[in-house]
Amino acid sequence: MPAPGENLRIDAVRLWDSLMEMAKIGPGIAGGNNRQTLTDADSDGRALFWKWCEAAGCSLGLDQMGNMFARREGTDPEALPVYVGSHLDTQPTGGKYDGVLGVLAGLEIIRTLNDLGIKTKHPIIVTNWTNEEGTRFPPAMMASGVFAGMHSQDWAYARKDADGKSFGDELQRIGWRGDEVVGNRKMHAYFELHIEQGPILEAEGKDIGVVTHGQGLSWIQVTLTGKASHTGSTPMPMRKNAALGMARILELVDEIAWSHAPHAVGAVGHIDVHPNSRNVIPGKVVFTVDFRSPDFSVIKDMENRLEAGARSICNDMGLEIEFERVGGFDPVQFDDGCVSAVRTAAERLGYSHMDIISGAGHDACWINRVAPTAMVMCPCVDGLSHNEAEEISLDWARAGANVLFHAVLETAQIIT
Amino acid sequence: MPAPGENLRIDAVRLWDSLMEMAKIGPGIAGGNNRQTLTDADSDGRALFWKWCEAAGCSLGLDQMGNMFARREGTDPEALPVYVGSHLDTQPTGGKYDGVLGVLAGLEIIRTLNDLGIKTKHPIIVTNWTNEEGTRFPPAMMASGVFAGMHSQDWAYARKDADGKSFGDELQRIGWRGDEVVGNRKMHAYFELHIEQGPILEAEGKDIGVVTHGQGLSWIQVTLTGKASHTGSTPMPMRKNAALGMARILELVDEIAWSHAPHAVGAVGHIDVHPNSRNVIPGKVVFTVDFRSPDFSVIKDMENRLEAGARSICNDMGLEIEFERVGGFDPVQFDDGCVSAVRTAAERLGYSHMDIISGAGHDACWINRVAPTAMVMCPCVDGLSHNEAEEISLDWARAGANVLFHAVLETAQIIT
Repeated sequence: MPAPGENLRIDAVRLWDSLMEMAKIGPGIAGGNNRQTLTDADSDGRALFWKWCEAAGCSLGLDQMGNMFARREGTDPEALPVYVGSHLDTQPTGGKYDGVLGVLAGLEIIRTLNDLGIKTKHPIIVTNWTNEEGTRFPPAMMASGVFAGMHSQDWAYARKDADGKSFGDELQRIGWRGDEVVGNRKMHAYFELHIEQGPILEAEGKDIGVVTHGQGLSWIQVTLTGKASHTGSTPMPMRKNAALGMARILELVDEIAWSHAPHAVGAVGHIDVHPNSRNVIPGKVVFTVDFRSPDFSVIKDMENRLEAGARSICNDMGLEIEFERVGGFDPVQFDDGCVSAVRTAAERLGYSHMDIISGAGHDACWINRVAPTAMVMCPCVDGLSHNEAEEISLDWARAGANVLFHAVLETAQIIT
Repeated sequence: MPAPGENLRIDAVRLWDSLMEMAKIGPGIAGGNNRQTLTDADSDGRALFWKWCEAAGCSLGLDQMGNMFARREGTDPEALPVYVGSHLDTQPTGGKYDGVLGVLAGLEIIRTLNDLGIKTKHPIIVTNWTNEEGTRFPPAMMASGVFAGMHSQDWAYARKDADGKSFGDELQRIGWRGDEVVGNRKMHAYFELHIEQGPILEAEGKDIGVVTHGQGLSWIQVTLTGKASHTGSTPMPMRKNAALGMARILELVDEIAWSHAPHAVGAVGHIDVHPNSRNVIPGKVVFTVDFRSPDFSVIKDMENRLEAGARSICNDMGLEIEFERVGGFDPVQFDDGCVSAVRTAAERLGYSHMDIISGAGHDACWINRVAPTAMVMCPCVDGLSHNEAEEISLDWARAGANVLFHAVLETAQIIT
């Protein structure tokens, strides 16, 4: 006796066509997208999504952060909705799938259920979270963060872009500020499909990543101050070379991350050298250490070892050092029941799968704080993301959307 | 029986007053100067210098590179002139002494000789070399380089500043392009007084540096290419981290320089990280290694060890590496007779002194290729230069100018 709905599948070609149609809005310059949050392109993308949702018979909810909620009713008026979604905004040189796949796969679930005339006990609501990327208005995952109570709405409204325009003014300007109070919705569960944005699934030859945890993050900005002096006329023993101190701390960061293999990672992506002149020994270097681990105690250990080790390096070199924690979030453990629904769906559908830890932040990481949550990941070519060359195959999209579909179906309960 | 002129001294207060008067032209924002080459301020500085030279009875020579030559006649029509000078242009945030001291000390020698009615066998010519700094129009020491045949004049004229203006056009515009062909002058000797721009003399408590050599220089621009990827979602073993490769090569540069202690030095002052984002493992880093030594074979050894060691580092890390030699000059050994004249002058005047190697490039390094040349150095506070806070004491200026005076007197020969 097969499980209810075992042979149900989404229409992958329709999903793909919708992805390509959405990608026409806010095109990039190299095949990807530039549909940054609260731009005219973002507004156009929202309108297209909303047109599709209305055509699928959904009712619209729009909150004061611009979060969009497209609802397909359930049969039980008391049952809390199952939410599914991600984000339609992109990086300035972003791809066609990061976020978009998760939203349009949610829409495809509703279209498929409509086609097949299937009713669910719980309502299903497809969500587009505002400003997941955070490149125009930092921080990332802003509106899901307000929804989950991590930031106040006033604070979010006051964030400014590089031109000095505020988030609140721009949300109003593009016409997607709703009246609904943010964060009052109660969820039965939240599911998010997202491309991996890393190389593991492709390297391991797996169709599906069952996301069990989200890595915690610590960003520590380090400022080293030495003494700017002439590269020619300053004898080696009299130098206070801030760039050499930076180099030694980069090696330390690498050692610390490897010591917590395989799940912890560490790197320095941002380095500013002053005065950055070929014939001046750098007097100041500012750089940011990025440590991540799914284990809170490991993050604390990495931070402590960085501080002690870097201070020791600087003492030996006559450098001054300052630390500032400029960002971070705690590790996330997704809901056992929701994770299990994802894993069961992958097995039921015969897709190869593996448990995986999300290295990037996602809206699901904040929503997990207020509702049972899980994520589905599909591979992306060469791990490439935040890049116009970001690519996935139609088969990967099909597998990811079908697993999302079945996890949602199991949770929302088909009425037979 | 004292040597001829043993009790002769320049007027240090007059020299100092002239330094302060010149510093009023092209003032900086923090007590120093911004009198970059071929600006209106440079033109004004030249005019002031020339007014002073005329008042001292000099005749003016001006060549097609804008090099200025203020001549005090000698008694022997056949005797080649003794040249003395440096440069009046400054860094954009430069000091009041770098270059200027050498030019105005030359003028002070002529003023003193006039005051005392002293005649010399050889003419004495005070020179202001155009564009020694090279910050507006690279390379540094440009016009002395053309004089010495290192660059063609056409090439120099075609150099452009950040606004696209050419050296030739700007020289014409400020009115200091002469008719004289560059480099035809024959010199009996050339002497240059300059602040040390390093910390050695002050640390050693010496009044005078007798400059025996100029360090050779090699600038090697290194481009590392790895793979830009997400700091969170890329497992440690799958990274190609160009910044970590840069860090290891900085450590190698330091090791190589120390292995040739005490005279060789090495550092990296310029580092550009791409894309320089906190959550992206750098896919590309471009940086420039600065190696210096007074020994040509040492520079070659350092270059070879850098290339071999850096290739090995990159092989281990899966990084691509390219090297480009973007600058350099051979080590300089100054003329024995001229160096001896400087050392003898310091001893005769009772100043503490030491032999020193110039770590920075100077006009004297090029002129040494076409005439017997030596340099005198005086200390500067804390080794600070190319900085508005650059400072020297009046006593240091007095000592340096008196040693220059006596070296020039010995070479130009007083007529008694």
